[in-house]
Amino acid sequence: MKPKILAAAAAVTSTVLAATLALAGNYTAPAADPLVKQASTVNKPLPAPDPALRTTPAGKAQVKLGKMLFHDPRLSKSGVISCNTCHNLASYGVDNLPTSVGHGFVTGPRNAPTVFNAALHFRQFWDGRAKDVEEQALGPILNPKEMAMPASNDVLARLTTMPEYVALFKAAFPGQEQPISYPNLGRAIGAFERTLLTPSRFDRYLRGEATALSAQEKRGLKMFLDIGCAQCHSGPAIGGQVFRKFELPGREGEGDLGRFTVTKDPNDRYVFKAYSLRNIGRTYPYFHDGSVWDLREAVRLMAKIQNNRELTEAQTDDITAFLNSLTGTIPPDALQLPVLPPSHPNTPRPSL
Amino acid sequence: MKPKILAAAAAVTSTVLAATLALAGNYTAPAADPLVKQASTVNKPLPAPDPALRTTPAGKAQVKLGKMLFHDPRLSKSGVISCNTCHNLASYGVDNLPTSVGHGFVTGPRNAPTVFNAALHFRQFWDGRAKDVEEQALGPILNPKEMAMPASNDVLARLTTMPEYVALFKAAFPGQEQPISYPNLGRAIGAFERTLLTPSRFDRYLRGEATALSAQEKRGLKMFLDIGCAQCHSGPAIGGQVFRKFELPGREGEGDLGRFTVTKDPNDRYVFKAYSLRNIGRTYPYFHDGSVWDLREAVRLMAKIQNNRELTEAQTDDITAFLNSLTGTIPPDALQLPVLPPSHPNTPRPSL
Repeated sequence: MKPKILAAAAAVTSTVLAATLALAGNYTAPAADPLVKQASTVNKPLPAPDPALRTTPAGKAQVKLGKMLFHDPRLSKSGVISCNTCHNLASYGVDNLPTSVGHGFVTGPRNAPTVFNAALHFRQFWDGRAKDVEEQALGPILNPKEMAMPASNDVLARLTTMPEYVALFKAAFPGQEQPISYPNLGRAIGAFERTLLTPSRFDRYLRGEATALSAQEKRGLKMFLDIGCAQCHSGPAIGGQVFRKFELPGREGEGDLGRFTVTKDPNDRYVFKAYSLRNIGRTYPYFHDGSVWDLREAVRLMAKIQNNRELTEAQTDDITAFLNSLTGTIPPDALQLPVLPPSHPNTPRPSL
Repeated sequence: MKPKILAAAAAVTSTVLAATLALAGNYTAPAADPLVKQASTVNKPLPAPDPALRTTPAGKAQVKLGKMLFHDPRLSKSGVISCNTCHNLASYGVDNLPTSVGHGFVTGPRNAPTVFNAALHFRQFWDGRAKDVEEQALGPILNPKEMAMPASNDVLARLTTMPEYVALFKAAFPGQEQPISYPNLGRAIGAFERTLLTPSRFDRYLRGEATALSAQEKRGLKMFLDIGCAQCHSGPAIGGQVFRKFELPGREGEGDLGRFTVTKDPNDRYVFKAYSLRNIGRTYPYFHDGSVWDLREAVRLMAKIQNNRELTEAQTDDITAFLNSLTGTIPPDALQLPVLPPSHPNTPRPSL
């Protein structure tokens, strides 16, 4: 790989991050409402997507290309599984399964997180092993239990035979000697994912629209803040900013070691990234193992395990009502399917 | 089932068919061009979709509901496979696989035909075992090698627990005592499929726009008509109107018995529905077994087997060029993903 190319790509990524942070940073909590003030100490409204992704020719081309790649099952060995199979944009970026079904109808070890607002997380995957969505996107393609491509070169071998993809990569990564590369594939999918932001009523509330939440939702928000949920479920994604230890009661010491599998640090046993609560009402079943289907039950369990609080039925209802106010609007662009480029007779074929 | 309900549904279907036929019937070939005149004796331009599907409240509700059902993987046992998995609207209504991959990653026996323009076929499936798209849509849901739902009641058990679906079925089938029924599910998906029409340059040519086809495409069309391809690939779908015997050379007497499996009539051995050639450039691989990937090769083989003609390279190129002019425009509405209704905690869960 050429350092020049990497530097150029890093510059684009930095611009995206800087713009995102700048937009989030512009936010000042309205002074009037004490609950808004309290919420604003930990939660921020959703930033707007980086304008460069909508206005610059390269940014627009990256998003367009990224959307095609996101929906293209030819990124999988079988030709059956696309990113969208497990991160279905029609169901808030998830598959609503405990753990996803991949190549060979084999189930994976962890619940598939939503791609909506994922670009705002501080790290990617439940164990944080990828630093951003650009890096994350490249993992499942090569995972034998997911899309099962034998190697990144096999992915490139498919893409380079399709003239439409060749032209799109060239437009998305202008001036590069080899626009079709595996890192650029991640960059394009990442650019698309950075547009997948879902503004909700809670954002309007944080920006000062007092009636955007109902009385019950405000009670739930107050409880959410007072018992300490927002310590982990913080920032613009209402989560996705910290690692925390998490074990389901009665199952301590079992199963998934979480971030320990990445760091081998004993302190990281059973440590996972705190989930983003945006659209949480739609991203059931819950937790890294997808073992809990009912949001009320997940709320009750989390309060007990993480905050040592036994919630009343009414308190559970209130917090659940607040969490449902985080169900946002999917941008119409995200729901517009691309028309995928045709394969060429020389395109390496799918195989099972 | 209640005769009253069936009669009402039959009336809707008749209206749809009558409107479709009326629109196709309005076409008169332009007098000027002898090639248009020759083509018009066998091929017809695409009709417009039934206006009732866009203008009446029930029609609009059926299309909206049908699109959701088409994209909903909860119509499969696993919760992984939707109609769109094998009839991917982003790739012209097919999965571009020899035969589809279904429940358990098992492959089916025949190539998945496209859903675009399928409503114009005289029968559905390669062997014609379903009479229309409404009936066709109900088959794969219960096929153990496809979506693998144990029984239609299991499908209804999922749908009836979701208040959004309950309301949508009610709006789509007003006045019915039990709007959520398995036949109505087929009617809704069928209504959506009746909107999946893809006008092409060939339609503009048939309507008198002489420059809509290039000189090579016109040579290809002339050859296509002269050697008899249009005897089977006729009508508004450029195919899908007749059954014909078809065996690949060197493989006679092997494999799939075609329509014989439905009728048990010895004359129906190796008999299949002639494929619709609309979007044929995108619906590779070809034939009922998906064994041929290159359109030129499929053209060469068909001319040899069905018309006893050895095409020159130039003739093959010309016919292939004409066939590629049949790649149509996917209606933007068809590419707009629905947002699927959330499951209820009581919704029966997916299982593998």
